[in-house]
Amino acid sequence: MKAAVWHGRKDVRVEEFPEPHAPGPKEVKIKVHWCGICGSDLHEYDAGPIFIPTTAPHPLTGMQAPLVLGHEFSGEVVEVGKDVQGWKVGDRVAPDACQYCEACAMCRQNRYSICEKLAFTGLMANGAFAQYVNVPAYTLYAIPPEMSSDVGAFVEPVAVGVHAVRRGQVLLGDTVAIVGAGTIGQVTLQAAKAAGASKVFVVEKARARKDYAKNLGATAVIDPGETDPVAEVRRLTDGLGVDVAFECVGGHQTGALTIDLARTGGKAVLVGIFEKPSEVHFNNLVFFEKEVMGSLAYYGDFKTAIALMADGRIVAEPMITARIKLDDIVEKGFKELLANREKHIKILVSLE
Amino acid sequence: MKAAVWHGRKDVRVEEFPEPHAPGPKEVKIKVHWCGICGSDLHEYDAGPIFIPTTAPHPLTGMQAPLVLGHEFSGEVVEVGKDVQGWKVGDRVAPDACQYCEACAMCRQNRYSICEKLAFTGLMANGAFAQYVNVPAYTLYAIPPEMSSDVGAFVEPVAVGVHAVRRGQVLLGDTVAIVGAGTIGQVTLQAAKAAGASKVFVVEKARARKDYAKNLGATAVIDPGETDPVAEVRRLTDGLGVDVAFECVGGHQTGALTIDLARTGGKAVLVGIFEKPSEVHFNNLVFFEKEVMGSLAYYGDFKTAIALMADGRIVAEPMITARIKLDDIVEKGFKELLANREKHIKILVSLE
Repeated sequence: MKAAVWHGRKDVRVEEFPEPHAPGPKEVKIKVHWCGICGSDLHEYDAGPIFIPTTAPHPLTGMQAPLVLGHEFSGEVVEVGKDVQGWKVGDRVAPDACQYCEACAMCRQNRYSICEKLAFTGLMANGAFAQYVNVPAYTLYAIPPEMSSDVGAFVEPVAVGVHAVRRGQVLLGDTVAIVGAGTIGQVTLQAAKAAGASKVFVVEKARARKDYAKNLGATAVIDPGETDPVAEVRRLTDGLGVDVAFECVGGHQTGALTIDLARTGGKAVLVGIFEKPSEVHFNNLVFFEKEVMGSLAYYGDFKTAIALMADGRIVAEPMITARIKLDDIVEKGFKELLANREKHIKILVSLE
Repeated sequence: MKAAVWHGRKDVRVEEFPEPHAPGPKEVKIKVHWCGICGSDLHEYDAGPIFIPTTAPHPLTGMQAPLVLGHEFSGEVVEVGKDVQGWKVGDRVAPDACQYCEACAMCRQNRYSICEKLAFTGLMANGAFAQYVNVPAYTLYAIPPEMSSDVGAFVEPVAVGVHAVRRGQVLLGDTVAIVGAGTIGQVTLQAAKAAGASKVFVVEKARARKDYAKNLGATAVIDPGETDPVAEVRRLTDGLGVDVAFECVGGHQTGALTIDLARTGGKAVLVGIFEKPSEVHFNNLVFFEKEVMGSLAYYGDFKTAIALMADGRIVAEPMITARIKLDDIVEKGFKELLANREKHIKILVSLE
């Protein structure tokens, strides 16, 4: 079959790759419909390896590079392992990308995204920029009949935003700030509004992303190239800052900025993946009793994500800024995103 | 009256200072019995000004340097303002050191230690290294008859440890680590045990502090000069790290260490006051969904502190490593602590 295979930094090849074997007893084989390019795919292309194992097989899946990228996907079941119950050929699904050990301390609390052996589909196991992929049956969620398969590929990133909002315990009436309005920032904005946030401020430079955040109902969109975001957010919150601030970039300065956007006694939720250490004055936490917490992927949030998308509280389709074919993933996907990040939110790859 | 007055860094003078005026309508005048030297007093002596206002009057109290240090104190009421109810001359008290505006967003949530105009007695208002001090009546807590006045001077630092354990939401059975076994570390150790922690590990170099932590029932005391604390704590917790780790130093490396001591999904509570920024890789929070939170002073924790001290779950007396007179506070207090920090936990100053 054809697949987009990560061989090394700046070396993703669309090439023939062995089609997955018949699924194991607890696996299903999926024919992929659509798969979105995630910021982490771009990171692996541009600056990897970050998550991809290159020197030893992954402890859970036994896989290492070269492997197939892609984890934001929808598809249909084409083959079912012998011990799998509840799924049949033809079911349309959006698989959770976390594969986990089901035995460690965090798995026992069902916080499986922080499993000590976590394997993310498309990073530590072969992924969905391919015609077929095998995944554990426990990762499957049904796409409702009225949801198209391209929108189904957004369930995964929407679950990231839902999880972040639940991690940050956004409460009815809370004020919220979101730093970075890529896909994760946009879905976090929508999830925060769905959670009852009274005001949601978005900090973003790129034109397309600013416009989209405005259209989604951001209370204000602040361009940090034009306005000091901390001063502006304080001005708009009676001098206080926000109850919960989300970092959806992973930038060198944006972590500290997110902490500064939170009010005294407020929270900063870090959703971005960082490339290097940051400088933080811990007194900014101590003197104001602020909290900073990481939010990684999701656990059990797919069902909420699907429900919010199904009833329109989170809309995905307008985030699609390009649809491309697998053959074009490097030129019209990774390279396009690096050259024109400004213009894009989500590029979807068709496998159909 | 005689008082220890902060004039500048390395310039604390025991000198004649105007005795407080008759207390305002909502104030009481306290005759001080004992007052402990806090790490923050030492910081102000050695590296200040940190909290002490020097260029403008404090917005709540109108005070600025030179002012009288001292906030860990016990005493007796000698004069009562005309609007004060519930207190009378002769009452023995341990005053909460937080003076606050009673109007800002955090005061309205009763989180008064993060009041936007917080004034700490002995740092932003004249304090208790003096024969007399005036304080707002709302700061007063009664010392039980069976508690001696020297032990009463520990209610304030014990409240800091109680608050930290409540902030970190230490639950029955949790594993805990404490970085730094000065007074705050020792009381946090005792508070964590009182909260039902199953194991409490203490990281400390100084001999006297290590011994005292052992005597207080630390599960293990780890000297970071001899043993890698992260590896050792993991070894002692089935490879996991602790549920809640407390930073009670404010050192340049100890914030990041405390984060590393926490397990995946665990918490780091910062209680120390930091002198400079630290380097942190935020992925250490994101990948493991850790939480870091600041804990400042206390709000409403004096009652719990007094109860725990009264029934013996927190013991203070063995922490007293010296008792000195006010006249000796510089030589036998600040200079002694700087020269022989190793040997000391708490130096108490007698005002009687």
